[in-house]
Amino acid sequence: MRRALALAEAAAVAGEVPVGAVVVRDGEVIGEGGNAPRRLNDPTAHAEMLAIRAAAERIGGDRLQDCELWVTLEPCAMCAGAIALARISRLYYAAPDPKGGGVEHGARVFAQPTCHHRPEVYAGMGEADAAALLRSFFSAKR
Amino acid sequence: MRRALALAEAAAVAGEVPVGAVVVRDGEVIGEGGNAPRRLNDPTAHAEMLAIRAAAERIGGDRLQDCELWVTLEPCAMCAGAIALARISRLYYAAPDPKGGGVEHGARVFAQPTCHHRPEVYAGMGEADAAALLRSFFSAKR
Repeated sequence: MRRALALAEAAAVAGEVPVGAVVVRDGEVIGEGGNAPRRLNDPTAHAEMLAIRAAAERIGGDRLQDCELWVTLEPCAMCAGAIALARISRLYYAAPDPKGGGVEHGARVFAQPTCHHRPEVYAGMGEADAAALLRSFFSAKR
Repeated sequence: MRRALALAEAAAVAGEVPVGAVVVRDGEVIGEGGNAPRRLNDPTAHAEMLAIRAAAERIGGDRLQDCELWVTLEPCAMCAGAIALARISRLYYAAPDPKGGGVEHGARVFAQPTCHHRPEVYAGMGEADAAALLRSFFSAKR
């Protein structure tokens, strides 16, 4: 989660909402990303999506079995859907997102009968740091 | 929708589940894609995602206001989330997807309070052709 938090900090410096994510397999980071929709002109370029795409490219397949995703904020519906499609085994996220989350809020993607793979989900590790980053980013914007 | 159906047919020829999508602005196709997660080693490479990413790159921004997305199958939760994030104005899809859809089934992404942009949604145009393509693809697989 430390690496994900560092990626979130880097996103903030680049003017993007500070969220960072890494994909880990056997203790090794095989994909990472910081939130970058503006910089990349890509509305899908959330941290989780970039980390998943990088990891899948690295392993040369479209399934990330036996991989963990660590992310600083509760994934939105898009990212939760991608996590299920990628067959991520375990999801760790730091801060919950009542306004935009899709795991324990809103679409609750993994709880739907249309979801064909459910990762184990662990929330809260690093929550204080991740939430502080987001608060500081949005208060500076105001 | 004819162009989206042609992209779906091309996906089937490439061994991918036949789904195709186009983004249209002012009557012009500005992004398109055929489903390609296997070919691209990318679990996020659904037709809609490729079309949205291509259109956003083309216009040089991360918002596709005043754009329509035409797709041959009801978008899943990931793609519905991306459509909302991209601020697509109107969504047209051909066939419903009770098993994996995220618009009128399952996550019902646009109906959630966590969804910050809801496109107008029109379903059913081209449904027979889109469903026939999918049936033929899956029956050939068995």
